[in-house]
Amino acid sequence: MTDINLPSDHGSLLRAARGLEPADLVLKGGLVVNVFTGETEAADLAVKDGLIVGLGRYDGLTVRDVSGLYLAPGLIETHLHLESALVAPGELAGILVPRGTTALVADPHEIANVLGLRGIRFLLDASAGLPLDFFFMAPSCVPATHLETSGAELEAEDLRTLLAEPRILGLAEVMNFPGVINGLPRVWDKLALFARRPIDGHSPGLNGPDLNAYLLPGIATEHETTTLAEGREKLARGLRLFIREGSQARNLADLLPLVNDHNYRRLSFCTDDRHLDDLLGEGHLDHVLRKAVRHGLPAMKAVTMATLNAAEAFGLRRRGALAPGWRADVVVFESLESFQVREVYKDGRLAARRGALTVPAPRIEPPDWISPMNVAVLDRAALDLPAAGARVRVIEAADAQVVTGHSILETPARNGRLVADPDRDLARLLVVERHRGTARVGQGLVRGFGFNQGAMASSVAHDSHNIVAAGMSLDEIILAVDTVRRLRGGLAVVAGERVLASLALPLAGLMSPAPAAEVAAGLARLEAAAVEIGCRLKAPFMCLSFLALPVIPRLKLTDRGLVDVDKFEFVRLFVE
Amino acid sequence: MTDINLPSDHGSLLRAARGLEPADLVLKGGLVVNVFTGETEAADLAVKDGLIVGLGRYDGLTVRDVSGLYLAPGLIETHLHLESALVAPGELAGILVPRGTTALVADPHEIANVLGLRGIRFLLDASAGLPLDFFFMAPSCVPATHLETSGAELEAEDLRTLLAEPRILGLAEVMNFPGVINGLPRVWDKLALFARRPIDGHSPGLNGPDLNAYLLPGIATEHETTTLAEGREKLARGLRLFIREGSQARNLADLLPLVNDHNYRRLSFCTDDRHLDDLLGEGHLDHVLRKAVRHGLPAMKAVTMATLNAAEAFGLRRRGALAPGWRADVVVFESLESFQVREVYKDGRLAARRGALTVPAPRIEPPDWISPMNVAVLDRAALDLPAAGARVRVIEAADAQVVTGHSILETPARNGRLVADPDRDLARLLVVERHRGTARVGQGLVRGFGFNQGAMASSVAHDSHNIVAAGMSLDEIILAVDTVRRLRGGLAVVAGERVLASLALPLAGLMSPAPAAEVAAGLARLEAAAVEIGCRLKAPFMCLSFLALPVIPRLKLTDRGLVDVDKFEFVRLFVE
Repeated sequence: MTDINLPSDHGSLLRAARGLEPADLVLKGGLVVNVFTGETEAADLAVKDGLIVGLGRYDGLTVRDVSGLYLAPGLIETHLHLESALVAPGELAGILVPRGTTALVADPHEIANVLGLRGIRFLLDASAGLPLDFFFMAPSCVPATHLETSGAELEAEDLRTLLAEPRILGLAEVMNFPGVINGLPRVWDKLALFARRPIDGHSPGLNGPDLNAYLLPGIATEHETTTLAEGREKLARGLRLFIREGSQARNLADLLPLVNDHNYRRLSFCTDDRHLDDLLGEGHLDHVLRKAVRHGLPAMKAVTMATLNAAEAFGLRRRGALAPGWRADVVVFESLESFQVREVYKDGRLAARRGALTVPAPRIEPPDWISPMNVAVLDRAALDLPAAGARVRVIEAADAQVVTGHSILETPARNGRLVADPDRDLARLLVVERHRGTARVGQGLVRGFGFNQGAMASSVAHDSHNIVAAGMSLDEIILAVDTVRRLRGGLAVVAGERVLASLALPLAGLMSPAPAAEVAAGLARLEAAAVEIGCRLKAPFMCLSFLALPVIPRLKLTDRGLVDVDKFEFVRLFVE
Repeated sequence: MTDINLPSDHGSLLRAARGLEPADLVLKGGLVVNVFTGETEAADLAVKDGLIVGLGRYDGLTVRDVSGLYLAPGLIETHLHLESALVAPGELAGILVPRGTTALVADPHEIANVLGLRGIRFLLDASAGLPLDFFFMAPSCVPATHLETSGAELEAEDLRTLLAEPRILGLAEVMNFPGVINGLPRVWDKLALFARRPIDGHSPGLNGPDLNAYLLPGIATEHETTTLAEGREKLARGLRLFIREGSQARNLADLLPLVNDHNYRRLSFCTDDRHLDDLLGEGHLDHVLRKAVRHGLPAMKAVTMATLNAAEAFGLRRRGALAPGWRADVVVFESLESFQVREVYKDGRLAARRGALTVPAPRIEPPDWISPMNVAVLDRAALDLPAAGARVRVIEAADAQVVTGHSILETPARNGRLVADPDRDLARLLVVERHRGTARVGQGLVRGFGFNQGAMASSVAHDSHNIVAAGMSLDEIILAVDTVRRLRGGLAVVAGERVLASLALPLAGLMSPAPAAEVAAGLARLEAAAVEIGCRLKAPFMCLSFLALPVIPRLKLTDRGLVDVDKFEFVRLFVE
């Protein structure tokens, strides 16, 4: 799958290429988007045995008239945490393929934080045999920090076992930049292991001599760029940039002015984290292409970035262009403006038509180890904290932001005990360890959700994916956490003694095995329930899931306690 | 050498990159040619342990002021038959490195036709440890045809032994296009062996469905393009084009109009066959850059084509650009117009300055098997042919052309024996088998040299490199051949009983182990001697060496006889 093997019966392929016998399939009368020349070309495209055998005038056993339509190479996603879509690979393929995506490079670090190598191998298995090629990068930072409890730790020796997997391309986003530039052996052991493979970077804002040092091990790509100045420096230092347009981080409009005739070959697109509703609503890379062209990027450059450039960034040979001997992954667009997809061919076979797969995605049977939920029933008494100070640290949550604020406010208390305070929009926040049965619970306060009652909980809680819960009373929080526990992972909104809505995510507590439409409906019910308990955030679960991530400023909560991210150390909840 | 290994002491590298300790070397105050951005950038370039550790402001143990000069990546030759320069790899490095070339990809098929794998391994050994990285492609067509006797035959099983050589990159120019498109197993076995490696094409004039078929096995590059239309089609079908500007074939001016903003990434330069006098006089890729810019190609594109694009074509990582973590191969140009080279740094060390190597090239000791000269003393009586027909086929040689004409003329005879005829400029032509002691001699006539006396002989005789000789009498031809034989390979010009000039090429009969200046002087003496015997050709030995190549139209002579190349079959010398 990473490469093309010559078929043993090449005689028949050659005769088809030479027009001496009919091809399997001919797409006739379309305009071929030629990413080598930058021109569209009126030509029949002939396919046999999954390969393009020729462009020109051809006859085939099957001939499809694509007059007036554009044939482009299948789109390639360069960096995706597929767990963010909350569905299994087969369901994801059912969404992405009809949007024109025929290959993606995933960083499975969410599931790896829960299940380690077993989780990665589960995704490899679950994504095999689909009409979408799933490639993976070996996660470099599991756990993300030692300020939290993850389900697994992956050292270089663990990652070594992945080198032989044909769909493991390289090393995923190297977030630990201090580890890189300070020469930390645990980090450099991983870098050395992947020295001859693609290594993805992750260095928001890094510049100057520290950026130079970060690049020494051969880190080759970067998708965290947010400003033009940062993009210019990173391009100049040899990084290939993946312009990110996800659900949360949307850098496309800001970064498009970077692209010019000389450097466009060094740029591609990624979505990084893309939520189910956005995938179903806006789309995937088709949406990125539409938006890029609307913002002035020439369509030919946009398509080249999403295809050939992406393939080159990962050394994927004979993929990302339409040429003889190349893989027959073809998207039929209605125009190079709307990027509406009429049909998609994967390895030469019709895979999607007018928005739907034409082949059923195989349903997976989740193994019994897939959702560890090693957490005891919560002890209410132990969680009922005395108000041990006059003031308290509060995480300031802002809508659609992963960065939080860090405030110190007067402690909300009743009878000497810490409580939520609806008047000041202060909710209690818990992070409950779920991997190792430690019974560790981190406690804090969060402002900004707008709750007037109830609680919500989630087993999606970056990056260790413990259970994070916020709410107005301890009882409601406990009910929400218990609901997630009983679902073996998932999302829940409760009010009083009632579960208003819930969604099971039994695949590692991160994904559902259910059809995408069901999952989307469940998410809609959850969001309605959140509104019912007063929540004002547009993406409350997304917001909640990032409150536990101690690598993003400024104040975060893990199962081990409150983390002042600026200082990268634990701080006490109560002040004085 | 094909890749960069992380040094075990990366701590010191990192500190140098971060400016916390001095680099080994800093090139200060120059303008860096940034092939990623397409801009020149005022920056110090810091080097340590052979790698670039940073661009910016740096201090070093050694600091060189390069104010007002341009720092570019070392130039990369994409396709070269290095034997054509007639000198050993060390001497070649002494010419190319001061011209800015720091890596080359050679097709060693000349020596392979003489010595097979032993010859290739000799070049690998002789090119190791030089301040120029010699990469090789495994020759795909040894022998070129079965119409001649070569010193070796290389089948897929032989080439398999080369796969483990780190400096063997892929499969060299696949000249047997009928074999490819007809699915010939002997050819496809080789293609399959190199299916995951770069494969160079060689398909002059091939187009349409046959070109499509030729590309199916993954043939990825092409350097035989001579016209714009051919170049456009080949680019569109996914071939990377190496624009050739050699001694003989000079396609640069014709093909430059191909290059545009979108496709320039798919183009590089090669010289293919470059003679010693041209290398010493005009230069190598520096000459190509000068000429390209003079013909209107923007300098930034030209440099990018000669560096980053060439590296990408062969998957050479971290080479072809100046960036942190990339190989410190740096050319210091005086301008991006003259491309005069001031200094060259190879792996971070000064390697050449103002036209000369700063490190001595190691002298090689040729092994005793290096020049097989398995040829008996010629039997004059057997060579004295009866004039067995009234008319005779004549090879028409034209100056500076490898293509010959095919005439049928009245037989020049004396006493019933075939002779040369100075009045009609008809010389006798012999090809003497020298590899297997078969005593086979092919006989013919050639018109166009202009001899009035004497003979010349050469053990450089494409592609099998038997001994080819032309002259006005059998005795003089025999003396010339014997001279070459006694030299264990080489070139000779004789008149009467006197050897006017000769040059020993004891490395396979193709190259001299002597200093390049000596070889150049020897060649000058040979050319003067050729003039002395009346030769009017500007490049008589080049012309002579191609008279034995039965893959180039139209009439050629091998040790097995006259070949009508249009029909690809032997024909009789005498007609009727």
